[in-house]
Order: sequence, then structure tokens, then C-alpha cells
Amino acid sequence: MSPKAWTGRFAQELADIALRFSASVDVDKRLAPQDIRGSIAHVDMLEKQGIVTPEEGQAIRQGLGEIRTEIDAGTFEWSADREDVHMNIEAALRQRIGDAGGKLHTARSRNDQVATDLRMWTRDALDQTTAQIDGLLSAIATRAGETVDVLLPGYTHLQRAQPVRLAHHLLAWAEMLERDRGRMVDARGRLNECPLGSAALASTTFPIDRAMTATQLGFDRPARNSLDAVGDRDFLVETVAALANCAVHLSRISEELVLWSSQEFAFVEMSDAFSTGSSIMPQKKNPDMVELIRGKTGRVIGDLVNLLVTLKGLPLAYNRDLQEDKFPVFDAFDTVQDSLDVLSGVIRTLGFRSDAMHAALGAGFLDATELADWLAERGLPFRDAHHVVGRLVRRCTDEGKTLQELTLDELRAEHELFDDSAFATLDPNAAVERRDIVGGPAKNRVQHATAELRKRLLDRGVEVDRSAEVDRGAEE
Amino acid sequence: MSPKAWTGRFAQELADIALRFSASVDVDKRLAPQDIRGSIAHVDMLEKQGIVTPEEGQAIRQGLGEIRTEIDAGTFEWSADREDVHMNIEAALRQRIGDAGGKLHTARSRNDQVATDLRMWTRDALDQTTAQIDGLLSAIATRAGETVDVLLPGYTHLQRAQPVRLAHHLLAWAEMLERDRGRMVDARGRLNECPLGSAALASTTFPIDRAMTATQLGFDRPARNSLDAVGDRDFLVETVAALANCAVHLSRISEELVLWSSQEFAFVEMSDAFSTGSSIMPQKKNPDMVELIRGKTGRVIGDLVNLLVTLKGLPLAYNRDLQEDKFPVFDAFDTVQDSLDVLSGVIRTLGFRSDAMHAALGAGFLDATELADWLAERGLPFRDAHHVVGRLVRRCTDEGKTLQELTLDELRAEHELFDDSAFATLDPNAAVERRDIVGGPAKNRVQHATAELRKRLLDRGVEVDRSAEVDRGAEE
Amino acid sequence: MSPKAWTGRFAQELADIALRFSASVDVDKRLAPQDIRGSIAHVDMLEKQGIVTPEEGQAIRQGLGEIRTEIDAGTFEWSADREDVHMNIEAALRQRIGDAGGKLHTARSRNDQVATDLRMWTRDALDQTTAQIDGLLSAIATRAGETVDVLLPGYTHLQRAQPVRLAHHLLAWAEMLERDRGRMVDARGRLNECPLGSAALASTTFPIDRAMTATQLGFDRPARNSLDAVGDRDFLVETVAALANCAVHLSRISEELVLWSSQEFAFVEMSDAFSTGSSIMPQKKNPDMVELIRGKTGRVIGDLVNLLVTLKGLPLAYNRDLQEDKFPVFDAFDTVQDSLDVLSGVIRTLGFRSDAMHAALGAGFLDATELADWLAERGLPFRDAHHVVGRLVRRCTDEGKTLQELTLDELRAEHELFDDSAFATLDPNAAVERRDIVGGPAKNRVQHATAELRKRLLDRGVEVDRSAEVDRGAEE
Amino acid sequence: MSPKAWTGRFAQELADIALRFSASVDVDKRLAPQDIRGSIAHVDMLEKQGIVTPEEGQAIRQGLGEIRTEIDAGTFEWSADREDVHMNIEAALRQRIGDAGGKLHTARSRNDQVATDLRMWTRDALDQTTAQIDGLLSAIATRAGETVDVLLPGYTHLQRAQPVRLAHHLLAWAEMLERDRGRMVDARGRLNECPLGSAALASTTFPIDRAMTATQLGFDRPARNSLDAVGDRDFLVETVAALANCAVHLSRISEELVLWSSQEFAFVEMSDAFSTGSSIMPQKKNPDMVELIRGKTGRVIGDLVNLLVTLKGLPLAYNRDLQEDKFPVFDAFDTVQDSLDVLSGVIRTLGFRSDAMHAALGAGFLDATELADWLAERGLPFRDAHHVVGRLVRRCTDEGKTLQELTLDELRAEHELFDDSAFATLDPNAAVERRDIVGGPAKNRVQHATAELRKRLLDRGVEVDRSAEVDRGAEE
Repeated sequence: MSPKAWTGRFAQELADIALRFSASVDVDKRLAPQDIRGSIAHVDMLEKQGIVTPEEGQAIRQGLGEIRTEIDAGTFEWSADREDVHMNIEAALRQRIGDAGGKLHTARSRNDQVATDLRMWTRDALDQTTAQIDGLLSAIATRAGETVDVLLPGYTHLQRAQPVRLAHHLLAWAEMLERDRGRMVDARGRLNECPLGSAALASTTFPIDRAMTATQLGFDRPARNSLDAVGDRDFLVETVAALANCAVHLSRISEELVLWSSQEFAFVEMSDAFSTGSSIMPQKKNPDMVELIRGKTGRVIGDLVNLLVTLKGLPLAYNRDLQEDKFPVFDAFDTVQDSLDVLSGVIRTLGFRSDAMHAALGAGFLDATELADWLAERGLPFRDAHHVVGRLVRRCTDEGKTLQELTLDELRAEHELFDDSAFATLDPNAAVERRDIVGGPAKNRVQHATAELRKRLLDRGVEVDRSAEVDRGAEE
Repeated sequence: MSPKAWTGRFAQELADIALRFSASVDVDKRLAPQDIRGSIAHVDMLEKQGIVTPEEGQAIRQGLGEIRTEIDAGTFEWSADREDVHMNIEAALRQRIGDAGGKLHTARSRNDQVATDLRMWTRDALDQTTAQIDGLLSAIATRAGETVDVLLPGYTHLQRAQPVRLAHHLLAWAEMLERDRGRMVDARGRLNECPLGSAALASTTFPIDRAMTATQLGFDRPARNSLDAVGDRDFLVETVAALANCAVHLSRISEELVLWSSQEFAFVEMSDAFSTGSSIMPQKKNPDMVELIRGKTGRVIGDLVNLLVTLKGLPLAYNRDLQEDKFPVFDAFDTVQDSLDVLSGVIRTLGFRSDAMHAALGAGFLDATELADWLAERGLPFRDAHHVVGRLVRRCTDEGKTLQELTLDELRAEHELFDDSAFATLDPNAAVERRDIVGGPAKNRVQHATAELRKRLLDRGVEVDRSAEVDRGAEE
Repeated sequence: MSPKAWTGRFAQELADIALRFSASVDVDKRLAPQDIRGSIAHVDMLEKQGIVTPEEGQAIRQGLGEIRTEIDAGTFEWSADREDVHMNIEAALRQRIGDAGGKLHTARSRNDQVATDLRMWTRDALDQTTAQIDGLLSAIATRAGETVDVLLPGYTHLQRAQPVRLAHHLLAWAEMLERDRGRMVDARGRLNECPLGSAALASTTFPIDRAMTATQLGFDRPARNSLDAVGDRDFLVETVAALANCAVHLSRISEELVLWSSQEFAFVEMSDAFSTGSSIMPQKKNPDMVELIRGKTGRVIGDLVNLLVTLKGLPLAYNRDLQEDKFPVFDAFDTVQDSLDVLSGVIRTLGFRSDAMHAALGAGFLDATELADWLAERGLPFRDAHHVVGRLVRRCTDEGKTLQELTLDELRAEHELFDDSAFATLDPNAAVERRDIVGGPAKNRVQHATAELRKRLLDRGVEVDRSAEVDRGAEE
Repeated sequence: MSPKAWTGRFAQELADIALRFSASVDVDKRLAPQDIRGSIAHVDMLEKQGIVTPEEGQAIRQGLGEIRTEIDAGTFEWSADREDVHMNIEAALRQRIGDAGGKLHTARSRNDQVATDLRMWTRDALDQTTAQIDGLLSAIATRAGETVDVLLPGYTHLQRAQPVRLAHHLLAWAEMLERDRGRMVDARGRLNECPLGSAALASTTFPIDRAMTATQLGFDRPARNSLDAVGDRDFLVETVAALANCAVHLSRISEELVLWSSQEFAFVEMSDAFSTGSSIMPQKKNPDMVELIRGKTGRVIGDLVNLLVTLKGLPLAYNRDLQEDKFPVFDAFDTVQDSLDVLSGVIRTLGFRSDAMHAALGAGFLDATELADWLAERGLPFRDAHHVVGRLVRRCTDEGKTLQELTLDELRAEHELFDDSAFATLDPNAAVERRDIVGGPAKNRVQHATAELRKRLLDRGVEVDRSAEVDRGAEE
């Protein structure tokens, strides 16, 4: 028997080059666990509906179970001649149990089969990824708890702007990741409809029970339209878009860690366990892990573009172009999942150099806003206060001074409202503590936000406050 | 007074070329309604908190109201010298009400201001777009209701596959659009947090009430972290990704209408109101509208890539790169919104050529699966049944016959199970009616699915069953 | 000895997860032939410059040769612990020849080494791809030669427009591919500068001879700036952009073949050797190969986006992000190269159904332009002639006639210029032959264009007119 | 008369929404100069071929000249009702000169007309862009000439690596831009074929002279295939890909200037003329111009993706999707051209802080490679030398020392080869001067490379060494 599913009407064999070009088993064999689980649900239903006999059903289930065992053990022989994961498994089943194996394909096509497998796989991968995000959030929660008393410059335009708490900065990362998580949860919810029973495009004439297979496979319901169920892949676009958003967030965190690792910033030291060196320069300790995370962003964005381009302009229902949907999805998940785990390791083991952070608060006039606010609180329109302090900053720059080094007379030369109490406003810690509002960097606000994050994680069953006994980069 | 917000510390004016390059008012003036609404909420709160006096508050509100009136009337003078929408409005306010105008910027920065404006604008645009999707769904519901008795070939690989109902095909489009709508609703929910009060990056020292402004502006809550609130734009990525998914769906529907309009398919005729001709070929009637919808897909995907690239690798918090976030969002919404409305018009006025659709069922062996199912129901493993019928198809192809034209002897030459009842299975309508399962094309299933769609629309307050008195392309 | 190149300053080993994440040997081992060739040139130069002794040089060359043999035979043991292709080969060399192996890395860094390898690999891949394009052009030339007498409708907006020769249509494909080829040749020329000697970023203190290694490795010259040579990858962007342009062309050709294979067009029949069937529908013969080619376009565009995103915003010189440059380049070449070969096979074996093509000329008023031109030649402004014929077409449409079926009186009812000679203008073959200008579809023009294509191919040493003894889809 | 070109066969007017959706004149009116130039060449040829009379030709030329004058003066009334730039101009011509105006469209379609216009426009835009690149190169040449004696750290992984000359770093930028220029020159050469005469898709029956119009419009030759000439846009993909490559280069230069402007690096100070401030923080001086250039990269990459997606899968010949080709091309050119000019201004006026650059050489063990090379020159395999120095660096890090502060005994404790002469190798200037090879940072090499750049520019007629009398940021 020919290993292919469709040779009846063909007079001639597929050309070798065409076979190699169109075989997908190297990529889609990754769907095997989902494929077998789906086949078992299908045969259970066929049996219940009387479409196969209990004996046939039992033979198929047993055969599939043995194949699954072989696949898990790595002993299953995949063959490109058998095109794809589905035909490899079905051919193995027929070899094993004979004719009854052929009945598994009753009331089913590869079109609904692969759509079902792919939704199950994506659902599992989303679950794993949200768990990994939780792991990274847990690392952030731990480090935020440890660093609530550390101040560093907040930046805009990569210019020192105003002092903030390091924990406040870390919690900004947590907010981004929480939203990424939310997008993945939404994607999972929306994709959780079962295509099985749509067959090639128009459902089937067999008296199947679509609700039964949907339930058995953990879907919320059968998909509502057979053409749509086999012909669309928007759930993959949504999923990979959520991954791309997440990858961009990881690239932004990584960029900050690259900057902070530089000799110029020197705010952190990476653990040796997450750094590498140079083959030519003996002194180098490079932040390779976060550079790689940043560098892999393009990959996920490229995967998203790939999917969108593939789908653009395709008529209903299934077209072979859709075979190309799997690679970008697998690649995007692999990339983001690895990046999440590595970044968790990097952050857990990062050495924070709080002295360098604090020293950086001394230059760059991070207290200029305080002085302007001080004037505004005393009735000067803020725009005017801004101009007054701007002129003071220019004077300091010209004379190589800080604002704290100006005399009261010098202040009053720019505006008569100034008095001695203005100087007290310039202390960075006081500046941070005055920002005591929802979402602000004051200590109690940051502690509250950290506690809220921990609570969310605990509510989701995530372990927090893992022992901090890790080898970190040197801290000050 | 200099029109700029920040000239205090600068000794020299911005170069003309730099001013033109960095001014954004041509693009961001579109945020004016949101900007003014946000400013009014801000000043209401400042007044309640005693940061501005009631007189100042009143003057600011009145000034802003007058400016809004001018903008709506198109008489407001926008100036590139004033950089952006925020400074244009604030400068106009100070011209109008003097010093009190400067107080509006107390406890606020352009960083939180623009983040707030943009979330409000996006929220409004999402609401409008979901309403337009509902309009298109309503058109589809109407046409599905009218065409439940029309059969046409369902296609896979653009090859005729099995007969389906036209309404079933139209409902597949509805499924896609429903999910697009769901993504937009989710995006709206997630973005609905108020950045106001985050100020430049670290919130503010003024005793503001963030909950009050959030509520007044229709947000669910204040954003939880000031650095994140001014520095991230993932809500735009999520939104434009949802629009790109929708644009791809529209491209697919458009591709089908281009195909169906061709002389080869001739399944539809576009209304003259939605077709154009050729400047050289007098006979041409081109499906330009759906070609343009298809052609604009790249634009939305390009907008999505633009946003992702812009955000990649940016450190916290605000960077000027973010100024570039507005164009792709405006462009993506404009493109998808126009496409939705035009496609609604196209579909409402489309002439369906049911005779041509029915004629197409006669060639291409769309009944081959029926014969295979017939054998499988009689106990032949489906794989074997498939081979038997495949050989029959090859024979017909060689001899220029249809399956219906074969004799029973010819059938039995391939498999002895065949008897006379096999021929009855070959009628297209019977074939469709046998597919009587959830999501299938049988008449009652399609009617039920149409009714469900209508119910969802009615539950959302959408008008359905608009009078079908439109000028349509000729029908048969 | 540690297998890594840089462990001197590190107190702690790389974490397992970090090692797996950063190891690239699974991808970059594909550079091994180029890496070894580059190392041999480097050691030849080191020996000539007296930096290594002849004995050391000989040992290194011999060791590298043995390693190359092992790699070619598939017996080389690649190890992820050794990070990348370079360290795998160098470690094997040191195991084999001892200390002298360590001298190979004198005056070289992995930064200039990988940049050199990658340029050599890309150069080779471009050469192979242009040869494959020539193969496809050769197939097109053969089929154009065979089909010069076959007419089919030319389309705009997928509406029948004017008759053209099939060969003219095929030659349009050839023009696209010629330009793709030109872009690849230009990319090859521009990238052909040798980075070797740039070392990590700042060249080297050793008295090396960069011109010698450049020449030995087939480069036109050494790269002019060491920072640029190790830090930029624009040659990959240019190359993959050329591949993406080509992939889009292949998608367009494929789309036409999908359309032409449909029952509606039925202009071609694919060979069985390049078609597949359905697992559920016995009658199906799907144009999977061209669907897959079309479907892989997104992959190449995604690879291009990947590269551009990876490079965006990177400071000089080398950053680890660049490790991610290899995958998209390999993937884009693999995809386009396979697509070119498969499409060559498809086109060589395609059955053209000239009867169906000719029949399609009968409907759709493809002769309307002829009639308008006939009027314009007799002095009517073309715009007016267009309107006259447009009205005639509308009349025919309403009455179910062709233009040829109108009477002279009916013609003259629209414009008095008409006389009997107008009818002669309506023959499709005559219409095509009247288009006897450069670039037009008249027979002598098409024959000339075909001959020119053949001549260009022969000048490039490409085999043309291969025996047409292939199994083709059925022709009429 | 209806303003549209094709209403003859239509019974009903275009719907308003469809008219607005499909009208392109807002975008394509930018092609007016090319459109009129092309029309004049076309009518000159029609006259020479006797297709229009000299009187008609003269009337058309005069009318077009007047229209051009109105357009240039901004007094021409564009109308969306007339769809596009071509119909606006033609309608104005007919209003002005009557029937003869209608003859201009003889032997021409909008399909070949717009393809010709677009090639001419792109050619002009490429010429302008290469001139702007030359302007930026000239600025770089000037600054490189001034800074040949300034040293700064060269970086890899954003870690200080080895000292280089600032001029060497600036010349790396020049190399990137030279290649961008080369790609644009190649694109210009390849696109320079004239589509005119291809008409709608199949050329024309009129006895036109395509060579004449091609020559008159500055094209190298007529396009070789009419279907290809009106149906492809690969020249736009190639052009925008070259622009995207350039934009990525500009983003990389910008990123470096953002870093160098930070308080942490403080290597440069932007001129006030190219910096802006903050509306809330009086001290801020932000590198907005280079942030914006970096931020606009996504736009150009998005434009490239837009074009590729638009073209993907389109059958021949012209489809209305192609109307969407113009926006991304205009947008990409506008963005890159403005960015080039602004960056030229930024670089001409940049204040280099050579003291800070020099100070940065003191920390980070940039001399470690020197010591390893010193050992390697004395016979130690480089890999071993690297390990020895790596251990010395770790010791220094632990003890807070530099390599220069180690004693000879401490050196010899790691390897006995060390002697006193090793210390001399650690001076940064000496380290740079030892790198005296092609492409290296030694002074004479950098001076030579600068002279070569100046010579290339002079050979291209570019002004170099403009007076450096510009207001720069403060230098040290």
C-alpha cells in the first residue's frame, strides 16, 4: 500500500524534489502528543456513536498508546515519505493493527485534524508561557522586596531626570509582564473551540458527536462553522502578536541591563553564571545573555510578519499555504520561553551596585523639578517656575556647580520667592518620599505595590520569595 | 514669551530644520478633543484638591471650552512653532486667560498627558471600529438570510471540493469578524487605565487625586506604576495587531470577491456603485473596491511592524522615539475603518449569480466524497474507500464522464460493495443535507447559525435586516 | 582545559541554561567549510609573515584538513559546550596537534572570523541561487518557445482585458527573475570585502598581511574600517531583501498557476509528479507545490524583518545580538532555493490547455479596445471613442450578445463613423498581431524576446532547450 | 461630461463612500511634474508619428505647460471626483483646449502612465537622497579630520574593549553610508527602463516609437515586456529596502549619540540648536533629534513590509492593489531624507568632549589585549596568553587595581615570561599606533582613510571642509 493518503486518482508518483519540498514531518512531528490525544477522543466518539465497533475502538486505542510510547522514547521511525505527523502515525497504526487502523480516519480529514492539534498545542504552550512569566514576576517581586531602600536616577531620553526607587523601576517591568500574561490568557480563551468534525471543509455525513470530542479534549465548545474552523489561523496571529509584545518588553528590560552593566553606568554586575568573555580580550565580561534576548526580538517579530503574510489574501477554506503556519508559532514560543527563563536567572543572580546608583543622583540636576515645584506650590504658575529654574541650571552648568551649591542670594537673583526652606527640597530621598501617590515611588507606595504583586502571584499558585541564596554578581 | 515649554536653560534657539523635524502637531492635533477633555478633568481635580483656586479653575475650563469650539469649527490656528497639540492648546489658553493658564500644567507633564490622550483616543477608535464590524456583520446576516437555499462549491486549494450553502460560506466570514471584534473588546479593557498623575516619569509632589481624574475620564483605575505608564505603548501594539488580524480577514474576503467577480467564476456581480472601469478598455468593470481593501492590508501590517520596531530596545521611561507611535495607530484605524464600511456597502449591494454557482457543482467530482462515505458506512475502512473512488475518478477523467454517468457495473468493477443506492448519494443538495451536525452546512444548521448571529447583534443593539432595497449587481 | 575561549577572569562556570541559550553551534556549524578555508588562509599568511613557524603552519593545515574530512563525512563530534563552530574546530585542532593549535587564533578574533565566514557563505549561496534562477529562466525559455502560437486572455484586475500570447505572459515572468538575478549579482559585488584582520574591533598589533588573506579567499579587497567590518551586517539585509523580492515574484507566478489550475480557469494541468491529493476527497488533485511556494513568501519576508529589527539601534562594534544574523539568512536562502527548483520542475512539466485558453477569449469583450482604437484611428478623440464602445458593451451585456454579434446599424446607432471594416478588427489573433512594437505581444516581437532570453542564458553558460521529454499534465 | 475615464458601460454612479475610498489624488498629485513631463514626451512622439497633428500637439503642450504653472503656483484645483493625478490633469487640459485634449490618451493607459511617472519620481528621489548622503559624508569627513588625535574606548557588547581614534569610529559610519549610497545607485540603474507604450497591459495598436519617449524622458531603454512593465513594482521594493538599510544605519549612529549624550558617557554635547528640553524638568537637555531619527526607523521598515505584502500573490498584470504603492515610497523617502539632513546638522554642530573620552580609557582594562599580545609575541600560544591575562584581570578586579598598578612580581606570579618591557605596552596611544595595518586605527591609517573619503566626495563634486564656524555644543 502506498504510504500516502490520496494516490487513487494519480497515474504517476510525486517527484522526489516535490516530496521533499512538501513533507512537513520534520516540523509537525512536534504535534504528535496532541495528534494522538485527539485521535483517541475521536475514536472514543466513533465507538460511542456506533461508527466503529468496540473491538475496533479498543485496537485503535491500544495501537495509538503503543505509538505514543515509542515516540516518547525516541524510538519511533519518522518517515518523510509519509508526508506529515498524521500520516506517519496512521501508517504505523495500520501496520500494527491492520484494517481497523484505516477506520480512524472516518468522519475526519487532515484539515480538521491539524487545526485541532494546533489549537491544543498552542493552548499548552500558552499555559507554559504564562507559568514562565509568573516565574519571572516572582524573581522581580523578590528583588523589589530587597531593594525598596535603594535609589537610582529615573531617566527620560536616557538623561537623568528624577530620583526613583530601584524597586519602583523593577515593578514597572512587572506591569509590562502582567499585561503580556493577560493577552496570553485572552488568546487561550478565544482559541479554545474544537474544529474536529469540520472534516475537509464541510463537516461530515457521519452521525458524529462534536460536543463529546470537544469536551474530552478540554475545549469550551465545538467551532461554529466548518469552513472557518479549517480555513482560518487568526488564533495563531493573536498568539504570536502577544509573544511579540512580550519579546519587545524583554528587549527593553535587556537594553536596560546592557546599559547598567556598562562601565559608564556600572549599576549592576551580572553573575559569572550569566556572562561570557572574549576570545581576544582577556578583561571582557559581556552581558551576552541579555544581548541575546534583545537580539532574538527580531525573530519573534519576523514570525508574526510571516504568519500575517501567509494568511493575507487566501480564499476559503484550507490552502496548502497553511502548512507554513507551524514553524513561526513553534519558533516564537521557543524563543520567548527560553528568554523568559534566562532572564529570570539573570535577574535572580544580578548584583545591584547601590553605591553607584546613589552616586549617579549627584550629577545631572535631578532636583531641578523639586525647586520648580517648590515655586509652583508658592503660587508661581508652573510654566514660569520652570523657566526660573531652567535659568538657574544654566548658571550652574556654566559655573560647574550643583543647585545645592548656589547661595540664597543667587536663587533670589532669579526669583524673589526663594527662601532658605527651598534647600531642604533638594534631598533625593525626600524628593522620592514626597511622591506619595498611587503609582508613585514613595516607600509605602512601592511596598504596597510589591505586596500586591506577591498576592497576585500567590493567588495564582506561584512560589514567591525563593531563597535568595544564589551566586550573584558583586554588590556594593 | 517663547512658545516652547522648556527654553529656560538654553542659550540658543532650535535650528529651523530641527524644529520642522521634531514638530508633531500636524499628526497629533487629532488628539485635541481628548487633550481638552483630559485637561478639564485635570483642572477639576486640581481645584478640588485646592491646588488651583475656583476662579483659576473656572477660567481654565472656560478658555478650554472656547478653544475646543474653535478647533471643532476649524478656525483654530495650529502652529508648528508650538511643537505639538499640547503646547498649541496651552499657548492659546495663556493668550486667552493669562497667567492662570500656566497653572494647568501643575502636577502634569506632557509625558503623562499624551499617554492619557492616546489611551482615550484609542478607546474611542476601538468603540467605533467594533460598531463598524457590527455593521458588516449585519450586512452578512441579511445576505445569509436571503441565500440559505443557494448552493455553491466549497473549495480547498482553490479546487472544487464539496457543495456547501452560500449562507454557510458567508457565515464563515462572520465568525472571523466576531473574533476580531472580541480582540478589540479585550484590548479596550486592558488599556483602560489612566496614566494621568505619572507626570514626567516619577509622579508628582502635589497632593493630586488620581482616582478622581481616572473616573471622570472613564478609566477603570489609575495606572499602577508611573514609569510604566509614561514609558510603555504595548496597548498600541495589541490594538494594531487586532486591526492587522482584521485587515487580513478583510483581504481574504476581498480575494474571494475578486475571484467570484471574474468571468471564470462569475458567481457575483458587483453593483455599479462599487465598481470602476478602465481608461483604455471600454468593456471593463473592475472590482476595485475589494482590490483596494486587499491592497491596504500591507499598510496595516506595516503599521504594526513600525510600532514593534519603534519600541524594541527602548530603555525606560519616556524616549522621544515614542512620538512616532501616533501615525501608525491613526493610519491603521483609518484604513480598517474605511475598509469595513466599504466592504459593508459592497456586500449589501452584491448580486449573487446562483445559477452560475449551481452550474459549477456539476464539474469537478464534488460528489466523490459522498461515494467514499457510502462505502465506509458499509464497512470498508475509509482509507480503502478513498482509493476505490480515486480510481473511479481517474477513469471518469480519462473518459470525460461524471461519476453519475458511470454504470453500476463500472462501479462494481472497482468494488463489489456497490449497489444501485449508491447513485442517490450523488445529488448535491442531498449531500449538503446529510451534513447535519453542529457547524455543518445543512439547512437547519445554517438557519440556526444565522439566527444566532442576528441575536448576538440585536443583543448588542445593532440594527439588522435593513431593507434590502439597494441597487445590486444583476442576479440570476 | 576549559573548552571555552575566555574563562581566565571568571570565578564561576556559565549556568547550564545560559550555555544552552547562548550556544550557536547547531546553527552556525553550517559555516564550517568557510571557517576552515578562512583558517587555512590565515595560517598561510601568519607563516609568510613569520608569526608562526613553517612547522606550526604545516601542523595546523594538516589538522584542519583532517577535521574538514571528518565534518564532510559526518563523523565530527559537535559539542554545544564549545559554544560555536569556531571553538568546536579550534578545540578539535588543539586536541589533535597540541599547543600549535592555539597559535591559529593569533591576530584574529571570533568577531572578524565569523564576519569573514559569513561573507564567504553568503557569496557562495548567492552564486548558487543565481544559477538556480538561470535554471528556471531556461525552463521558461523552453516553454515560451513552444507556446508562441497559443493565445490567452491578458488580465487586469483579474478581469479579462485583451488577448496576448502565452509566451508573452511567460516572458513577463522571465523579466522579473532577471532583475532578481541582477540584484543578487550586485549584492555579491558589494559584500566582497574581507573583514579578516579587523580582529575584535580595532585590528591587531601583529604585522599581518590583509591583502594576502583577502586575495586567497577570493575577496576583492580588505574591508576599509575594522569597526565597521565586525559590527555591520547590512550585506545580509541587502541579500535577504533581494531574496524577498524574488520570493514575492515566485508567489505571484504561483498564484497564477493556482488560478490556472482551478476548474474555473482550467488553463493548465499540473503533472501528477507535482500535485497531491486529499485524505478525504478522492477526486482532488491539488496544486500544492505552488501553494507552498506562495505560502513560504511570508517566511522570507519575516527573515528580512528579523534582520532589520536585530540591527536597529545597535551601537558599534560587535554585539552578541549579531549571533542571531545567521538563522534568517540560512532560512531565506533555503526557502528561495528550494522554491526555485520546485517551480522549475512545475513549469517544465506543466500541461497547457490551449483550447481552454482560446475559448476564454470568446467572452468578456476582450475586443472592445480594438473597436475604440478603430474609432480613434479615424479621428475621434480616444476618450470619446471609449465612451461609445462602453455604451455598446452595456447594450451587449443587457442583450446577452458579443460585439461581433452586433449589426452595423447597431454600431452606427452609437456613432456614425462605423463601417463594415470595423468587424475585421475584432479577431483576437489580428488584435495581437497589430500590437507589433517593442515589448508587445505580436509574434515576431515575442520570438525576438525569446531569442534574446536564450542568448543571455547561453552567454552565461546555461543549458537551454533541454529535451522536453518530461511527463506533463494533459494538454489539449 | 463625466469627469471619470470609464463611465460608458455603467448604468449607475459610483457610491460616495467608494469614490472617497478609491480616490488617490491626495497622495499621487505629488507625481504631477513627472506626469506632465511624461505627457509632453508622449505627445511629441504622437506628433512625430503622425498620430496627432502638429496643431493638436502644440495645443496639448501649451495646455500642459499652463497647468504645470498653476500646479507649481499652488493655484491648481485638485478634485477627488477626478480620482487621481492623471485624470485631474487631463480633465483640466480638455477644459482648456477642448477635444484635442482627449487625444493625449491615444496609445496610452493610466497603467503605463503611472508606472512611468513612478519610475521617474523614484529616480529623482534617489538622486536627491544620494546627494544628501554625500552631505552627511562631508560632515563626517570634516569632523574626522578634526579629531584624528582624539582617543576613546572602542566597545563591544557595550563594554570597553580597546582604545581607538574618534576619527576611526566616525569613519566606520562613513563606510556604512557609502554602501547605502551604492545600493541606491544600483537601484536607480535597474529601474531606468521606460514602461510607456505598454498601455493597459498588451501595448498598443498605434504605430508609436517607444525608443523616442524613453530617450526623451531620460530612460536607458523601453521596458522589454508590456505585462511586466505595468504589473510589477519590484523596483520600489529594492529602493525602499535600500532606504530601510540606510535608516537602520542612521538608527545605529543615533543610538551612539544618545549614549554619548548621557551623563554616564558624556562624550558629546549636542548643540542647543539640535536639542530640546522638558515641560516639567527644568534641567533637561534631551537628544531629541537623534531619538527621533532612531524612532523613525520603524516607519521605513514598516513601509518596506507594506510594499512586500501588497505585492505578494498578485496575478498579472495591473491590479488596483498597486495604487497603494505610492504612499510607502513617498513616506520612506521623506523620512530618510529628513533624517539625513538633520543628522548632518547634528554632527556638524556636535561638541566632542575629548577629556571625558580620554578619561574613559583609564578604567575597564582596555590594555589587557596588549598584555596578551605581548606574551603571544614571545611565543606563548595566544589562547594561553589570554588565560594568563584573564587571571591578572580578575586579581585586579578583586583588589581594585589597574594592570599598570601591578608589580612585575605579581605579573611573573602568573607567567614567568613577563619582564619590565611589558609595562610599556599598556599606554593607550601606543596601543592604537601599534595597530598600523589597513583598516586599523593608527594615525597614518586614519589620515589616509579620511583623505580617501574626501577624494571620493570631491570626485563626485561634493563640497568638503565647509567652514567649521558653527555653534557647537561645549567641547573640552
